[in-house]
This record gives sequence, C-alpha cells and structure tokens, in this order.
Amino acid sequence: MNGFMILYLLGLIFLIQSGCLLLPVTVGLFYGEKEWKVYALVAAVSLVLGLLLVLRKPKKNVFYAKEGFVTVALSWIVLSLCGAVPFRLTGEIPHYIDAVFETASGFTTTGASILTNVEALSQTSLFWRSFTHWIGGMGVLVLLLAVVPLAGGHTMQLMRAESPGPSVGKFVPKVRQTAFILYSIYFAMTILEIVFLLAGGMPWFDSICTAFGTAGTGGFSIKNSSMGFYQSNYLQAVVTVFMILFAVNFSVYYLLLAKKFRQAFKNEELWCFFAIISASVLCITFNIKDEFYGGNFYDAFHHSVFSVASIISTTGYGTADFAKWPQLSQYILLILMFVGACAGSTGGGLKVSRLVLLFKSSAREISKIIHPRSVKAVKLDGKRVDSAVVKNTASFFVISMIVYVVSVFIVSFDGFDMTTSLTAVAATMNNIGPGLSLVGPTGNYSSFSNLSKIVMIFDMLAGRLEYFPILVLLSPSIWKDGFFALRRKISFKKN
Amino acid sequence: MNGFMILYLLGLIFLIQSGCLLLPVTVGLFYGEKEWKVYALVAAVSLVLGLLLVLRKPKKNVFYAKEGFVTVALSWIVLSLCGAVPFRLTGEIPHYIDAVFETASGFTTTGASILTNVEALSQTSLFWRSFTHWIGGMGVLVLLLAVVPLAGGHTMQLMRAESPGPSVGKFVPKVRQTAFILYSIYFAMTILEIVFLLAGGMPWFDSICTAFGTAGTGGFSIKNSSMGFYQSNYLQAVVTVFMILFAVNFSVYYLLLAKKFRQAFKNEELWCFFAIISASVLCITFNIKDEFYGGNFYDAFHHSVFSVASIISTTGYGTADFAKWPQLSQYILLILMFVGACAGSTGGGLKVSRLVLLFKSSAREISKIIHPRSVKAVKLDGKRVDSAVVKNTASFFVISMIVYVVSVFIVSFDGFDMTTSLTAVAATMNNIGPGLSLVGPTGNYSSFSNLSKIVMIFDMLAGRLEYFPILVLLSPSIWKDGFFALRRKISFKKN
Repeated sequence: MNGFMILYLLGLIFLIQSGCLLLPVTVGLFYGEKEWKVYALVAAVSLVLGLLLVLRKPKKNVFYAKEGFVTVALSWIVLSLCGAVPFRLTGEIPHYIDAVFETASGFTTTGASILTNVEALSQTSLFWRSFTHWIGGMGVLVLLLAVVPLAGGHTMQLMRAESPGPSVGKFVPKVRQTAFILYSIYFAMTILEIVFLLAGGMPWFDSICTAFGTAGTGGFSIKNSSMGFYQSNYLQAVVTVFMILFAVNFSVYYLLLAKKFRQAFKNEELWCFFAIISASVLCITFNIKDEFYGGNFYDAFHHSVFSVASIISTTGYGTADFAKWPQLSQYILLILMFVGACAGSTGGGLKVSRLVLLFKSSAREISKIIHPRSVKAVKLDGKRVDSAVVKNTASFFVISMIVYVVSVFIVSFDGFDMTTSLTAVAATMNNIGPGLSLVGPTGNYSSFSNLSKIVMIFDMLAGRLEYFPILVLLSPSIWKDGFFALRRKISFKKN
Repeated sequence: MNGFMILYLLGLIFLIQSGCLLLPVTVGLFYGEKEWKVYALVAAVSLVLGLLLVLRKPKKNVFYAKEGFVTVALSWIVLSLCGAVPFRLTGEIPHYIDAVFETASGFTTTGASILTNVEALSQTSLFWRSFTHWIGGMGVLVLLLAVVPLAGGHTMQLMRAESPGPSVGKFVPKVRQTAFILYSIYFAMTILEIVFLLAGGMPWFDSICTAFGTAGTGGFSIKNSSMGFYQSNYLQAVVTVFMILFAVNFSVYYLLLAKKFRQAFKNEELWCFFAIISASVLCITFNIKDEFYGGNFYDAFHHSVFSVASIISTTGYGTADFAKWPQLSQYILLILMFVGACAGSTGGGLKVSRLVLLFKSSAREISKIIHPRSVKAVKLDGKRVDSAVVKNTASFFVISMIVYVVSVFIVSFDGFDMTTSLTAVAATMNNIGPGLSLVGPTGNYSSFSNLSKIVMIFDMLAGRLEYFPILVLLSPSIWKDGFFALRRKISFKKN
C-alpha cells in the first residue's frame, strides 16, 4: 500500500475541511454568535494537521484501485470524526457519538438527525450542518480533484471510488476537468434554487440552507417541522422540482450544455426514474386522497409528489407525516428507499440504473433457458454492458442486502417495533433520513442505543461510498503487507 | 415446443394423482365417512383424463430445458387445481380459491392455511391435506421418474427443473435410479418418524399425518394448536429432530448409506446449516428466557430450538406463539424464513448453499479490488463452482427479491400492518407457512382478499419450483412458435 500517498491526500482533505470551516466562522461573525470561535479553532487545528501531512511529499506515485478505495474510505471517516468536533465543543450536541452521527449523516447526505429540537441550534452550527450536505453531495474527493492540481493515475481511482453508480463515465478525457465541470453544474444549480426560494419570500439564511440540503439530496432542515414550516405551495414545489433535478445523472446536464440533446434523452435510467416517480405518485395520491385530504386531489397530489421526490432522491425533507399514511403508501415509500436516485447524481440508494441492470440480467437468465444457444448481452442505453459490470452490480446488491440484514439484526437488540428497525436501517444505509414509525418524518434517531448509532454511522458511510471502499478498508488482506510497503506481489493464485 | 410430449407427461401426472387419491378413499372407508365418495369420484375423473392424455404417445422425443420447465410448471398448477376439487365438493372449504390456496400450500409444502378450525375437517380430508405435503416434498415428477419407466433425455430435464438447489447432482448415472433412491430414503425416514411418534403415545392417525407434514417440511397440522396440542416434550423433540433431518441434503444420507463418511461430512452447506441453527437458537433462548419462561433455561431452549427448526426447515409447525416474542427473536426468525433449508432437501427458502455461494462471490469481488490480477474461483466443498452456476445463483436471488417486492406491493392493498404483509409473503414464497403478526402461529390466511390469495398461490408455486419454471411458462417468447411446433430455430442473435 502506498501509505505516504494516502497520508498526503488525507492532508489535502484536512486543508479542504479547514477551508470549509471558514464559512460557518463567517456566518457566526455575521450573526454575532460566540460559536464562531469554536469553528475557527477546529479550522486552525485542521490547517496544522493538513500542513503536517502534506509537508512530506510522497516519492512514489504507485496508486492502484485499492489505494483509491482506502483513501476515500479514510477521508470520509476523518471528515465525519473531525466535522463533529464543533458540535461537541459548542455543547449543542452533548455526546460525541451523537455529534458524529449528525455529521456523518450530513456528509453522507443522509439527513437523519438525533436532534429533538433543531431550532435550538446557533445559526453558525445550523449553517455548518447544512453545508456538510453540500460538500458530501458531490463528494469531497471530487472537490479535491477539481481544485487541487494533481497528476498521475490516482485521480481516476479516487473518482471511481467516490462516485455513485455501476460505472463511472468521464465527460472529458481529463479527470480534473470532469470534476471541475461537475462542481460547476452543481454550484450553478444550487444558486438557481436559492434564487427561486428567495423569489418565494424565503429568508436568505433559510434559502441557502434549504438549497444546500436539496443539492446534496441531504434533507437536514433548519426547522423542526422541516419543509412543513413553509406553508407555501410555491416554496414546497420549488424544493420538489430541485430534489428531482439533483437526483438525475449529472451527465445529462453536461450533454444538454454541450447541446447533445439526442444523447441526453437516450438515457434509459432517466426514463425509468421518471416512470417510477409517476407510478408511485399516482398510487399514493389515490391512496391518501380521501382519508387524509378529504377528497382534495390537488392537496393529495402535492404532498404525494413531495414525499415521493424526497424519498426517491434520498433527500428526506418532509411536508406531511407519511408514517401515518395507509400501508400501501408506506410500502411504496419503503421500496423507493431502496431504489434511490440515478447514478452520477448526488442521491443515494441502489440507483435506478443498477436495478435496470439487475432486471435485464435476470431476464437474460430466463431467456437462456428458452434459447440456450443465443448469445445475448445485457444492454443499457443501446450499448453493451461489460459482463464485469453486471457481475459487480449483482455483488453490490448482495452486499447491500447482507449489510442490511446484519445491521437490522444489531439494531433489533434495542427492542423497537419491526417497522422502526427495518426502516431506520434502510433510511440510513440508503442515505435518506426519515424512515417510518418511530423514525418517521416527525420522529428522530435520538432514542437508539450507542451501539445502534455506531452501526448506523457505519451504514451511512458504507452506503454513501457504495460499500466497496469501506469493505476494502476492513478486509484484513489489505493490511497484510503493511501500510507503507510498496512491494508489489504479482499474485496469480492458482486453485 | 414438444406439446405432445408435455401432454403425455401431464397425463402421467393425472394417473399418479388418481393413484394418490385412493389413499384418502381408503381412509374414508376405514373411518366410515361419506367423504370417501367425493375422493373416489375425483380419482376416477383423474384416471379418465390421464388415460385420454397418455393414449396418444408422442412421436418425437425432442425435449429440451424449456420443455422440462414448462412440464414441471404445468404439472404443479394442474395438481393444485385438481387436488383442490375434493375440498370444494365435500363443502369443507366453501370457496374454490380457498381450496386451491390450501392445496397449493399442501403440495408446495408451505403449510399456510385459510382454515380457522382445522379440527372440523373429516379424517379423510385431513389425511389428503397432510398427504399433499408428502407428495410435494420430494416432488411429483421425481416420483414419476421413480415409478414410471421413461427413456430419453427429458428425464434429467424434469429432475433439474423440479429439484431444489443451485445445481442438481445425480447419485448414480441413471436418473431413474437416483429418483428411486431418493424416494426410498424419504419413505424410510418417514416410517422411522411414525415409529418414534407412536412410541411416544401419539395415535396412529396423528402420527402418520404429523410425519407427512414433517417429511415434506410442510407444516399442516391436524390440530388447531399445531404441535402445541401434544403436551409432550418427547413428541415435540422427535418432530424437532426430524424437521432438521428432512431439511438436510439427501445426498448426505446417500453418502452415509454408501459408507462414504468422509465425503458426507465434507459438505460445507451442512456445517453452515448447523452453525446458523446453533447461533439462532442461542440468541433466541437468551432473548425469551426471562420474559416468557420465567428464567427456565430448558423450557426456553425447547421452544426456541423447535421454532428455529420449524422455520429454517420451512416446515412451520408451532409449539409457542413466536409472534409474541421480543423483536430480536422475531427478526431472527424473519431472516431464517429467507435462509431456508439445504439444497436437495424437501425444504424451501433460498437454500443455505446459495447463500454461501453469494457470500463467497461477493467476497471475491472485494478481493478482486485488492488483488486485481489474481484469478480466484469460487469454491464449494473444495470444488470449483462453475461461473454459470454463480451467475444463476445471483439471478435467482435478484428474481426472488423482485417477486417478493412486487407480491408485498399487491398484498399491501389489503391494508394490513406492514409486518403481516411482509411476513405473509415471505412465509408463502419460501414455503414456510406461519409468518408474524396476523399470520403468526396462532393466526391464519383467511382474512386476505382473493387477489392477495391468488398472489400467494403464485408465490408458493414459484417458490417451491424456484422461480424459473413458472417464469419460463409466463414468458411470451416460449409461446411464439406454438405449443406443438417442433421446428427448432437455431438462433444466434447478434448484438
């Protein structure tokens, strides 16, 4: 393992974190809150740690997939552990585990909260909490690639390990440029949402925080009643639209900007994504219309489309308490928790394209029985999908199910009802936020035991990084040769 | 499709069904119940239908995998539809859908019942109900292969399509002999259980029916309180042991009989199966000991091991109402519902060996990131597993999850609580019987709508036949060339 290179990159992450912390410092100074000092202190410590680590430039550039995965996993763990320190130091979150939960939930864009009263937080901390969503949404290593000029083969390995979806495409041959384009689109769309929210009369601070939460498909709100606080159909509709927009593969926007309209709309995942949304909204609207909205179609539709967009984009904002809706609606939302957003978006979950691939490869197994001699490959967007990607997708699904089953097992020790345990884990590992029953839109995660919280912190990180980085970090064979050993064994294991 | 051959085989199935129906006729005559006439009538009609179909011997022997799958699927549908007729005609189950549910539940060895009062049934019908478990357990086409001398390549296709597990092994080169050995072991073990039950003072009729239910890992009981009726630890322990024995791969018994002890105990699936059972029993015992059995370890252990054996073997007998146990215990049982028994046994579920394969192939994906150049194959029992089998296993898992999610969706329309919907479908598609909440050990399936019942009938059949036969039957491309068209297109589809 090229440990020196990994430490160097971690140093850069510390520097970026330090830079990011300057924003809440500014907010604190602006609002005249004393909390800015804590953030300034943590920023300074991050700066020193970062400088210490980047001081020693690595001599060797050797950087393979495993180094990429380990770097990404360690970066996210470091970010969560350090980003939690201000919450603990200001005393706003008294327990460090809770602070880590909240921060991991922020960076992974989960939006699950252990806070029972969000509005008690200082503006400074509220800003930092929402800003973690924005950084985590597009990815901190992608940010690193976009702003720091790095050369060498490792840039693609980092991007591949952090970006969501079954296969990572580059818009342009250069990784750095791709990262830069991604962040530019991301930034522009966030600004656009802020403008739309301001136009609806939302205050400046609220608009920015809400836009951060939408952009990262995170879901932390600065109000206890989430988006239900803003009793404006316009504002809720703006958020609905942007939740969906941020859950779309960003390559679609790049293609649109490049005026490749035909290519942009050939995206199979996009059509499936909208088909799933439409079907779900329709079902739920009719399911809740009479019982909850007195037969008012428009109201039922409004809350149904908001909730569906919030869950499938894995944002997790709420306007209505869907944990009280009929079983059918709840079950649809539970399925959507696993479906998740499009690959290459800021959303979580299994991703629509993975499901499409799983469907297609299963259909192929059946058609193989009928036509044993036909040689039919799985296709996506009209292109043949490499069989390694199909295999990896199947493994991804299996691994996510194993993580799910084991996590719920541990969380079950807390003794909450089955819906709570099942949906709490589903909502954290798929980076959504609210689940059903006790962890529904009006509930929170404060009552879980520390063990359960640690499991869910693991699930949030594992889910955001799509399991492989965290599992590679945990596999013993990666540590066998030592962290700094560069000796490369070419192992052709026979069996 | 070789329709003539399929119809010929269906004819044989009718003849076998007719023969099987003679047993309840005998029981009815013995107990002097008038219901025997109904069973005699249905047996006669089956005989005539069977003879009509076998009269026309098929000229061509062409028989591929697809014909095998279609034959198996159709056979099981026909059996369920016809086997239900006596229940309806005697009036003991007034609705035909309910009767089909009960019969499909019997043949597929699910053991889910729509009856609210089992004890009201005639001895004749109780016997037939339990006997369907015994026929379905080892498989009706395996029975056909064992008793009817058939020649040609189709015998293996039939066996492959009906037998559970990721790959079908033959003990001896001849399929017919293999089928015969399987049924001999099955028969001998059933007799053994009857003897043990009689020794514990269980009445003759009860012993036979209970043994049928155990052997097929079915779970229909002739008592409303299932095995809880027999307040004898000895009897419950006998059933526990036999539930586990019938859930073991029958090839282990064949190897033991052939005195190949080392080979028999090299079976990796067997060890995993017992490891899962031990761990589950331990967890549940300590979880229920204080709250439910006043700290009495023995009692808690007794009921815990019974329930675990009952669920993992997919039998479904009950001694305790585990739907009232703590969340952790319930969740363990829910996981075991999906785990299921060993391949090549009479049990259902995903099968332990499939899970082992899924685990191993996922671990390989992770190790591939770490050692990209290593060529490591997935191994089971020390032997390399063909990559087609690994792929098929992954597809099996994906398909079963799709069937699960879609089925729960439809069942959700009934509006029962989430635990009921989730476990009712899990219990039917994995051929277990009881679920949790409303369909727990003391509940039943009578309150579901007809639509839900039809979905669950589909799930039971699909689950018992391991999805592929039923899905092949449903895929439109199989009907394109017509049922009797023998023209074989060699299709090398290019893409």
